[in-house]
Amino acid sequence: MVTPLNYATRGFAPLPSPFHFFRGGEITGGAIAYETWGTLGAAKHNAVLLFTGLSPSAHAASSPEDPSPGWWEQLIGPGAAFDTRRFLVICLNSLGSCFGSTGPASINPATGLRYGKDFPALAIEDIAAGASAVLDHLGVHCAALIAGPSLGGSAALAFAALYPGRAQRLLTISGTMAASTHAIALRSIQRDAVKHDPIMGLRLARKLGTATYRSAQELAVRFGRQPSSGNNDFAVQDYLEKQAERFAVFFDPQSFLRLSRAIDLFDLRRHGDPVAVFTRAKLEQALVIGVEEDLLFTIGEQAEIAAALESAGVTTRFERISSLTGHDAFLVAQERFSAVIRDWLNGSA
Amino acid sequence: MVTPLNYATRGFAPLPSPFHFFRGGEITGGAIAYETWGTLGAAKHNAVLLFTGLSPSAHAASSPEDPSPGWWEQLIGPGAAFDTRRFLVICLNSLGSCFGSTGPASINPATGLRYGKDFPALAIEDIAAGASAVLDHLGVHCAALIAGPSLGGSAALAFAALYPGRAQRLLTISGTMAASTHAIALRSIQRDAVKHDPIMGLRLARKLGTATYRSAQELAVRFGRQPSSGNNDFAVQDYLEKQAERFAVFFDPQSFLRLSRAIDLFDLRRHGDPVAVFTRAKLEQALVIGVEEDLLFTIGEQAEIAAALESAGVTTRFERISSLTGHDAFLVAQERFSAVIRDWLNGSA
Repeated sequence: MVTPLNYATRGFAPLPSPFHFFRGGEITGGAIAYETWGTLGAAKHNAVLLFTGLSPSAHAASSPEDPSPGWWEQLIGPGAAFDTRRFLVICLNSLGSCFGSTGPASINPATGLRYGKDFPALAIEDIAAGASAVLDHLGVHCAALIAGPSLGGSAALAFAALYPGRAQRLLTISGTMAASTHAIALRSIQRDAVKHDPIMGLRLARKLGTATYRSAQELAVRFGRQPSSGNNDFAVQDYLEKQAERFAVFFDPQSFLRLSRAIDLFDLRRHGDPVAVFTRAKLEQALVIGVEEDLLFTIGEQAEIAAALESAGVTTRFERISSLTGHDAFLVAQERFSAVIRDWLNGSA
Repeated sequence: MVTPLNYATRGFAPLPSPFHFFRGGEITGGAIAYETWGTLGAAKHNAVLLFTGLSPSAHAASSPEDPSPGWWEQLIGPGAAFDTRRFLVICLNSLGSCFGSTGPASINPATGLRYGKDFPALAIEDIAAGASAVLDHLGVHCAALIAGPSLGGSAALAFAALYPGRAQRLLTISGTMAASTHAIALRSIQRDAVKHDPIMGLRLARKLGTATYRSAQELAVRFGRQPSSGNNDFAVQDYLEKQAERFAVFFDPQSFLRLSRAIDLFDLRRHGDPVAVFTRAKLEQALVIGVEEDLLFTIGEQAEIAAALESAGVTTRFERISSLTGHDAFLVAQERFSAVIRDWLNGSA
């Protein structure tokens, strides 16, 4: 039986104060913004903790308080893959981001000014620590499931490494145990652009992201050599500009720099051999989903995660999805992921 | 029998004055810089005309006048694929570039100032017209072979379309009849960066080029997650910076913008159905080489060129090369191309 929530469906979990960052530096009075859907059971054993990719907020699905669609709208709700009749689904805004959680755009209580460039260097492990603070705040000792796509997949791995026994199951989608050279190269170029000129740089970074998150085939099918309806030569340029415009309006350049670098620097092997890490984590089951066409978090990286989990004795399912939408598939082909996740969660009910 | 050259091995061919650009606009007093290796036969039937990729100069190989290695050093010389005992090899600097041919960095005779942004929009067809001026200057009516890699491959196609009967054989390497959406997307991002800030933009553009010319696997094998020996996090960032530094020093931003856009806008179909174009061109033989791992000028685009040539009745050989060096293979794996080209040219002697 479940009991009603006794806290708001949007809230802030305080970070330990001072909060010590994984790579050094500290902040005081920090907090992690989160949203929830569903109800926490009396035993508090039914929490699903969702990490996000680099850019989304904690608004993974609509709610009475915020009816706008979330970034994973189709996956969360009564009867959905993350079934809110069964689970309390929690999504958090990453530490260092700019949608409620403490980050470079937040006010430093010591100075009364925004942290800006003084915000400490961020590690994926810090994002995992933020998640731990959210679970503490909600009184959840052990999550039924930790899950995340992209950067959030790596954050879930970091959480498993740092907090053994604090999650029963693990789901990663298009994450990585350590970013590839190619992905590092592309992200470092994005950061160079942002460092040189924050606003124009964010635009360029988003354009480059958009051009590489999707597959070459998808762009060809959607836009081909269709002429621009604006001031560009080709329609694909209009599309990139639209994406860039949106992003530059709502994202903080310093948050971008820190989150982007955090994923490059993340290496699960810092916590020991991945098999040893997963053994220590005491995970029962895992689902690893990868997209064949993903250029940034390759299918090979997903296979490595699954293999290490298997070797650690975790009952693991590895699902390969083929989608021309590439790394973005988890956002734009939600029904595909929904089916796989629902099936896995029901099978393991 | 061949007779000695009666002109310098480096020179300038005058453009028609005024020279009318394919997309409108004109210049007066323009010239095309070229270099040659070997000797033109008395019948002037042994000329090999080489177009370059976006960034190289006409210095395709070393010579007594300039002993520094050229960009295709291994392919040109006595006994090499382009055998200078048999052929007069000519390489030209593209119109609009910045290594001797008239371009945005040249002085406009009408104003006494550099053309800069006033230089007309460039088309691949203009580069082909520049080549025609070089052949006129050297008294060559019909080239034994026109050849080019990357943008130069497309320039060779444009030449065949514009000057029927002026080339016996065609060789394209990693070119295109019409750039792919993905390549357009990536190049438009490079141009955005250069337009916004020419110097920093050229650096970013070159970094992005470097990260996409090669395959993800090549970067992984060469650099992995090796740490930076400088101020970066990773060695791959040092590498990108070194490439960027060099490029920003020697390349003109306005030339970059024009050449990059020219390859996006090129579409052989403007000259008619490709099969009709190649039939009209009166080519006898063709060799089309593509690299399986090329992300920018895909193997599919090479197959399309070869198929159209075949259908036009041109005796065509289509060679697929597998190389982790991707689009850059023609520069860094010259021995592979050398073998294929030598074999083809000898077979068709």
